[in-house]
Amino acid sequence: MDRESLRELLDEVSSGRTNVDDALQRLRHMPFENLGFARIDNHRALRSGFPEVILGTGKTTAQIAAIAEHIAAEGGPLLVTRIPADVGKVLTQKFSSGTYNADARTFHLVEGEPRDKGRGEIVVVSAGTSDLPVAEEAALTAWLMGNRVTRIYDAGVAGIHRLLADRKTLERAAVLVVVAGMEGALPSVVGGLVDRPIVAVPTSVGYGASFGGLAALLGMLNSCAAGVCVVNIDNGFGAGYAAALINRRNQRE
Amino acid sequence: MDRESLRELLDEVSSGRTNVDDALQRLRHMPFENLGFARIDNHRALRSGFPEVILGTGKTTAQIAAIAEHIAAEGGPLLVTRIPADVGKVLTQKFSSGTYNADARTFHLVEGEPRDKGRGEIVVVSAGTSDLPVAEEAALTAWLMGNRVTRIYDAGVAGIHRLLADRKTLERAAVLVVVAGMEGALPSVVGGLVDRPIVAVPTSVGYGASFGGLAALLGMLNSCAAGVCVVNIDNGFGAGYAAALINRRNQRE
Amino acid sequence: MDRESLRELLDEVSSGRTNVDDALQRLRHMPFENLGFARIDNHRALRSGFPEVILGTGKTTAQIAAIAEHIAAEGGPLLVTRIPADVGKVLTQKFSSGTYNADARTFHLVEGEPRDKGRGEIVVVSAGTSDLPVAEEAALTAWLMGNRVTRIYDAGVAGIHRLLADRKTLERAAVLVVVAGMEGALPSVVGGLVDRPIVAVPTSVGYGASFGGLAALLGMLNSCAAGVCVVNIDNGFGAGYAAALINRRNQRE
Amino acid sequence: MDRESLRELLDEVSSGRTNVDDALQRLRHMPFENLGFARIDNHRALRSGFPEVILGTGKTTAQIAAIAEHIAAEGGPLLVTRIPADVGKVLTQKFSSGTYNADARTFHLVEGEPRDKGRGEIVVVSAGTSDLPVAEEAALTAWLMGNRVTRIYDAGVAGIHRLLADRKTLERAAVLVVVAGMEGALPSVVGGLVDRPIVAVPTSVGYGASFGGLAALLGMLNSCAAGVCVVNIDNGFGAGYAAALINRRNQRE
Amino acid sequence: MDRESLRELLDEVSSGRTNVDDALQRLRHMPFENLGFARIDNHRALRSGFPEVILGTGKTTAQIAAIAEHIAAEGGPLLVTRIPADVGKVLTQKFSSGTYNADARTFHLVEGEPRDKGRGEIVVVSAGTSDLPVAEEAALTAWLMGNRVTRIYDAGVAGIHRLLADRKTLERAAVLVVVAGMEGALPSVVGGLVDRPIVAVPTSVGYGASFGGLAALLGMLNSCAAGVCVVNIDNGFGAGYAAALINRRNQRE
Amino acid sequence: MDRESLRELLDEVSSGRTNVDDALQRLRHMPFENLGFARIDNHRALRSGFPEVILGTGKTTAQIAAIAEHIAAEGGPLLVTRIPADVGKVLTQKFSSGTYNADARTFHLVEGEPRDKGRGEIVVVSAGTSDLPVAEEAALTAWLMGNRVTRIYDAGVAGIHRLLADRKTLERAAVLVVVAGMEGALPSVVGGLVDRPIVAVPTSVGYGASFGGLAALLGMLNSCAAGVCVVNIDNGFGAGYAAALINRRNQRE
Amino acid sequence: MDRESLRELLDEVSSGRTNVDDALQRLRHMPFENLGFARIDNHRALRSGFPEVILGTGKTTAQIAAIAEHIAAEGGPLLVTRIPADVGKVLTQKFSSGTYNADARTFHLVEGEPRDKGRGEIVVVSAGTSDLPVAEEAALTAWLMGNRVTRIYDAGVAGIHRLLADRKTLERAAVLVVVAGMEGALPSVVGGLVDRPIVAVPTSVGYGASFGGLAALLGMLNSCAAGVCVVNIDNGFGAGYAAALINRRNQRE
Amino acid sequence: MDRESLRELLDEVSSGRTNVDDALQRLRHMPFENLGFARIDNHRALRSGFPEVILGTGKTTAQIAAIAEHIAAEGGPLLVTRIPADVGKVLTQKFSSGTYNADARTFHLVEGEPRDKGRGEIVVVSAGTSDLPVAEEAALTAWLMGNRVTRIYDAGVAGIHRLLADRKTLERAAVLVVVAGMEGALPSVVGGLVDRPIVAVPTSVGYGASFGGLAALLGMLNSCAAGVCVVNIDNGFGAGYAAALINRRNQRE
Repeated sequence: MDRESLRELLDEVSSGRTNVDDALQRLRHMPFENLGFARIDNHRALRSGFPEVILGTGKTTAQIAAIAEHIAAEGGPLLVTRIPADVGKVLTQKFSSGTYNADARTFHLVEGEPRDKGRGEIVVVSAGTSDLPVAEEAALTAWLMGNRVTRIYDAGVAGIHRLLADRKTLERAAVLVVVAGMEGALPSVVGGLVDRPIVAVPTSVGYGASFGGLAALLGMLNSCAAGVCVVNIDNGFGAGYAAALINRRNQRE
Repeated sequence: MDRESLRELLDEVSSGRTNVDDALQRLRHMPFENLGFARIDNHRALRSGFPEVILGTGKTTAQIAAIAEHIAAEGGPLLVTRIPADVGKVLTQKFSSGTYNADARTFHLVEGEPRDKGRGEIVVVSAGTSDLPVAEEAALTAWLMGNRVTRIYDAGVAGIHRLLADRKTLERAAVLVVVAGMEGALPSVVGGLVDRPIVAVPTSVGYGASFGGLAALLGMLNSCAAGVCVVNIDNGFGAGYAAALINRRNQRE
Repeated sequence: MDRESLRELLDEVSSGRTNVDDALQRLRHMPFENLGFARIDNHRALRSGFPEVILGTGKTTAQIAAIAEHIAAEGGPLLVTRIPADVGKVLTQKFSSGTYNADARTFHLVEGEPRDKGRGEIVVVSAGTSDLPVAEEAALTAWLMGNRVTRIYDAGVAGIHRLLADRKTLERAAVLVVVAGMEGALPSVVGGLVDRPIVAVPTSVGYGASFGGLAALLGMLNSCAAGVCVVNIDNGFGAGYAAALINRRNQRE
Repeated sequence: MDRESLRELLDEVSSGRTNVDDALQRLRHMPFENLGFARIDNHRALRSGFPEVILGTGKTTAQIAAIAEHIAAEGGPLLVTRIPADVGKVLTQKFSSGTYNADARTFHLVEGEPRDKGRGEIVVVSAGTSDLPVAEEAALTAWLMGNRVTRIYDAGVAGIHRLLADRKTLERAAVLVVVAGMEGALPSVVGGLVDRPIVAVPTSVGYGASFGGLAALLGMLNSCAAGVCVVNIDNGFGAGYAAALINRRNQRE
Repeated sequence: MDRESLRELLDEVSSGRTNVDDALQRLRHMPFENLGFARIDNHRALRSGFPEVILGTGKTTAQIAAIAEHIAAEGGPLLVTRIPADVGKVLTQKFSSGTYNADARTFHLVEGEPRDKGRGEIVVVSAGTSDLPVAEEAALTAWLMGNRVTRIYDAGVAGIHRLLADRKTLERAAVLVVVAGMEGALPSVVGGLVDRPIVAVPTSVGYGASFGGLAALLGMLNSCAAGVCVVNIDNGFGAGYAAALINRRNQRE
Repeated sequence: MDRESLRELLDEVSSGRTNVDDALQRLRHMPFENLGFARIDNHRALRSGFPEVILGTGKTTAQIAAIAEHIAAEGGPLLVTRIPADVGKVLTQKFSSGTYNADARTFHLVEGEPRDKGRGEIVVVSAGTSDLPVAEEAALTAWLMGNRVTRIYDAGVAGIHRLLADRKTLERAAVLVVVAGMEGALPSVVGGLVDRPIVAVPTSVGYGASFGGLAALLGMLNSCAAGVCVVNIDNGFGAGYAAALINRRNQRE
Repeated sequence: MDRESLRELLDEVSSGRTNVDDALQRLRHMPFENLGFARIDNHRALRSGFPEVILGTGKTTAQIAAIAEHIAAEGGPLLVTRIPADVGKVLTQKFSSGTYNADARTFHLVEGEPRDKGRGEIVVVSAGTSDLPVAEEAALTAWLMGNRVTRIYDAGVAGIHRLLADRKTLERAAVLVVVAGMEGALPSVVGGLVDRPIVAVPTSVGYGASFGGLAALLGMLNSCAAGVCVVNIDNGFGAGYAAALINRRNQRE
Repeated sequence: MDRESLRELLDEVSSGRTNVDDALQRLRHMPFENLGFARIDNHRALRSGFPEVILGTGKTTAQIAAIAEHIAAEGGPLLVTRIPADVGKVLTQKFSSGTYNADARTFHLVEGEPRDKGRGEIVVVSAGTSDLPVAEEAALTAWLMGNRVTRIYDAGVAGIHRLLADRKTLERAAVLVVVAGMEGALPSVVGGLVDRPIVAVPTSVGYGASFGGLAALLGMLNSCAAGVCVVNIDNGFGAGYAAALINRRNQRE
């Protein structure tokens, strides 16, 4: 209930059209109805190209399929993340117009290509080939949300020239997603080369003292380059989503 | 060597004023001078409102004063972070036009008020009164970089109505910086209320199992709200800087 | 040896029916028999509706079946927790009147429905669908101990309106069990809405920097809401049991 | 604004005593006042014996004094925790009717003795003499909230007879707060002796591999006794508060 | 080279039977041969009833079988620890007089029963049924080394009367091995009841915040009972071996 | 209530001097008095040369002095550990016949020299000079408990010859206490040289990745030498006490 | 762009064949082309005997095979690390002249035997038989890079004589690679015996409190022997590579 | 006892000048004297320019002064590390020819300048100005051991051009010591630029999630650049020493 409907209600009470008990009843729920607006806003946001997302990890194939069916029935765009090939196969059989992306380990179902909305370019940089699934998850998420995405893969800091070779692309970016495992140093170096927002994604790539991505995570949090923000280990979706939020900021889409 | 001096050199070679060997000698260093361009860009960026920053932690008063003098001599805006009152006093004596901010524990020296550049509003939200120094460091940094900053303080999740009371301000924000210690839950709740980029700052406020901010940090990294990015514990400057980068993204300032 | 048998023994000594040496011999063990009272109390407590519990984790199917048979033979209520479907099947074949609950991953055997004892309502709140097994383990445990249980599931803090929509139910609760993985922020928010005891259960739901539930655990321990107590990660049984203890406190059942 | 004053306002509007604009002005804050109901409830709760609490840690003496003055001005009971003797002295000078408790490191200001509300007994057990400040903080909090509190101190598990000597007191308890540092084993042993809710408080007492209370915390979380809930390391206030919530549960105070 | 052979060599040089160069050659290796004495001592010790031990973890069945064959060929007693049933089967087929102990997950091959050497009694106490494999590994090791071993199993601290019921056995012990997972509190309680050396063994039994035995390990290291020493998590063999060393100390066996 | 007083009570009942109700009253407390036997045993043990110990850490000088006075008044031997020189001075002024040991940071008060009881030799080995306070605390504790103690200090593994030079002393030991910080490797090497029980004490000596003694602690727990038991970081007292328990085991002192 | 092509470009400008704008365009990219030289240097280095390396962990067999084919096509030496036998089989079928080393879990393809380049000897020491795969990976890497490699295996510190027996070999070494799991004490002891550079490799061999190699890693980092450097847990390749770099340092190969 | 004196002793026995018993007596200590050779070698090594080192941390000024006096008395070079200015002042007063280096926090006493031995150049690179004390400790150590040392300071990865500007110096190095705090990424980048051995030193510079240098340590251990070895956090001395060992390897100095 917004200010206008509140005035309207009060006018009704003032004029006797609504009695006190009924008004009381409606007002009692107002905070929740007000808060319920957020749900509607949320839905609107989703219709604007933001996919509804199912995190596949820790759900059975049956659960994933059931939730997906519910979302698809509402006509919404659908994104399922972190699912192996066999779950992807089940979903592809169920939703024949959907796509399982083996690189990103995702399934998505959208009506038509995501519309390019004329925003800036999101550049996804990754350090090694093993970081590819996480990088692809980020790239696909940003693309589904209507962004142009450019990829610079296998550009780790131990061969800095590989990164510098793509410097123009880096500088062209509106937002960057930088994905790295092991020591997670790539965001610091990229952050020193460009003055654009960087969403850093540590990955669990590595062994021994990488402790499942902890080394990369700590490295990125301690980055000596200002402007680097960090998401959870292996959270490609979150990084793509944040980059899309950053990218659309001024357009009131 | 910037683009202009490079053209000048080439003109000299073209006209014979400089011979090939001398040019070669000077150009041999060009890659580094070329890379030095970034430094100059950087300086330009700084003149546009981005302060040069000295992290006070781990430096002696003498070291801080010396570096500050160097920066001030170059006429640049100056920001010193994480300094106690006595260091602030020394700097204020040295640079009479500068300001020590006891809340943010910062000293800054800028020529005139930072110009409002007509960008969106950066909203800094903090959970508790003890998070104030970090929140103020973020707010001051963003303000020094030319942004309008609104503060919502003491709005922790255990009294959710305190946060909801400022919901309109939250929704008006272009970017949000959300600062919280203890369990660090605030960014998740804010992230569920708005669809704007959120820079989350865990603080070391707490005791026992907060382990110096680790609990808040992990909480924010695991946020169930998409679009939340995280910076280092107590890194108010980094959050303010990142928010400013995000906010100016499209204006090519 | 309870108070009555102690009196009986002393009467025998007093009347000469038992001589001092024999009494001494029997009394020498009294402390342990006295302490054994607790065992008997315990049994009585169990007969009052508190199930005997077997933690399935780390036991073979054969071991579980053997212990279950022993308890069933004594006629007691039986609860086996954390068992997969195949163990549940073995137990269901053995005890045809028992029930395997696939959601809670439990097997229980009680005579008749647990009697509602007219206590307050225990409300089990969970943050996400993946937290369901732990939440169900808590709910089933509390129900087996004679309590009315209401469930509010999938009410994570990133969509705070989902939780607020059930505010009346929350306020009606005598005790709350709040289950959450990832950042574990839900107990803090619930704790700010009600002034009832909250038993918080962190779950291992999450990935990366959730470190197997550590993030949620630390989050809950650092809750800024007073009145929140925490049990072990994924310990649905312990939470349900504690909630039942809290709920029956004054009735001397 | 509670339900009654809301009805009153609507009656005023309905009868014309208050016009729409004035009502709107007052109601504009209603959602927040509605949500503020919790705050008012809270105030009511506080007047019923629940103190308003200021966590002294990380606040300056000036800040503490200022907040305390604000609370005292509203006539509410006041509790300040974790303050050293010198802060206590400042507060005692400011509020001559208040009390600094050197054992609990608290300052409180209440009108008259907290009224005993005829609830059950809260028993605070501690393992060693060094755990005393935390145990006293819990005891004082519970007492300020209107509960009878009994203390069993220095009853660590390495001399189990010291604990067993007070077995009757343990069994008489309605709720127990069990405080222990080092290995934190006391709650498990107490939990095996009684079937009452136990709020376990790990303390930072210890050295070396106690890692600031981590050992005690983990020990308590892994307690093999069902019904044990845990609060943060050294969180005596939280334990006393939770115990009071549990104790008053059924009386609708 | 022991003292006697050294004298012999010197006698040979003194009498001219060995010339200086040859003696020099032999003496050059003396330190290592001297140090080699330890090896021989070791062998002697082993023949006295101390088994040669193969840690099965991380070795292939083939590797284990090969090393076992080598030891058996030298006629020595043999103990293989931490092997599953299938490896046990292979060894039993190879060494028909050996025994695979499914409880302790060990294979041993000794000539005749270990001789009871009239030492004190080693009492192995365990907290829960899941701790049994580790407790049995300790018991079997101590028994193989010629000690009488008594077992008190399933005597966790949450039912302290179960432990106290066996108090006489505890007090009779010369050395105790106390095995516990979860919170690892048992050694502290036992340590408060007896004044005998206690070798505490944390186990990985537990879940969630037990972190693979870390909670039990820290608990035992922080034991408030003096005289408690700790071995590695799940190290039943090490505890049994240490207990045997302690037990035979004065007999110069 | 010991066995004799129990018989006496039964005699009184048998002869009618005490009636059943009075006996019941007194016997009701018997278990605790029985358990109190342990306390008396304890006292007896203490009189036999085992000091009563006060851990100075975390206690105020006043608290330490008060407890010490209580123990001294009972005539018992007294040991206070981990106290700085100024506390030692206070105690020395209070108990003129006591001794403050600046190396071990202890104060003790015993009547006459601890009597050598003809047991084996306890050898305390330490790795570096900074480990001395911990090693001295162990040595002093063992000596106060009536043992001969030999010291081998500054014998770290990086100069293995320094250790081997004292090999004869090592082999002569009945029990060894091995103290080391940094990587904590010394117990493994000593354990390979002798077949006597070893109580290993990690110290917090070190910096950086020693993490306050964690590295040494983990090193010792993972020792590849069987027979090594470990106590808490810096726990010299516990090691000396355990060594003394081990050393007196068979003499029933 | 190397020096020659730069001179050529300048000659073209000087002679007017290239105008300033075109030269400017080409020179703008020079830094990156210059940095590209490093790539070529890199290739040259590889041809000199340094193998191109594929870390097998986290790559599919198809990915490994594809990358291997690419490298083999360029005629370069090839090393694939951390691959199980089945991947080794696929590679052996594809590259018939290559070798799968089951001990080191590597596949390599080199033309002819690595040429011994007359450098010093690299000695690889390992503590236990389970450390063999890591030690072999180091030895094979160093050998492929043209070094003589000597192995001293199963020389753990708990039997120091086993190590001392090979003292001459240790002293002969130019560089040492020391591999150990569990407490990781071997490098300290070796470091005390020789004054040569030591590359220490912690392994994940162990259980319980070894925490996947963390204990060994911390032990080595805290080594009291100067001159010990450490690589990641289980990083045999890295150690062999570093040892080879150290060994060839002065020869400008 | 070295080879020559051993031969001499045998000659004495052979000729009858020394009888067997006396020789036996002297030879009994031989193994240790033989092992003592290492000590003598060590001394020789020290005289060749390797300083004797006292780690100041955790020692009192008196202890440091006493040990220093002992070393100075033997005429050896002396190096004391990690001492504050006041300890330096005491040493400077005691040893007037020694030098306290405030940057490196060291005191050293050598006769004459360390002789340059014509080895390769050791380049010490550091990331930030706060890393200077550690870098200087490394540089001073290497210089005291007779090496030419070049410094490249304040060359962090966030401004990669600062590092690339000194590329020639990097490539000229025989060995590199790379010092960095925060995310510790510098060794990876340097390791990608040169193919020389790199000794990486993590520092405790940073805050929050740097966890006292842990982030930098893990980053360096997980470096994607082969050839990077790591020493303990802040261990400048160890890095300088290791670099010197590597540098002198082939010269048999």
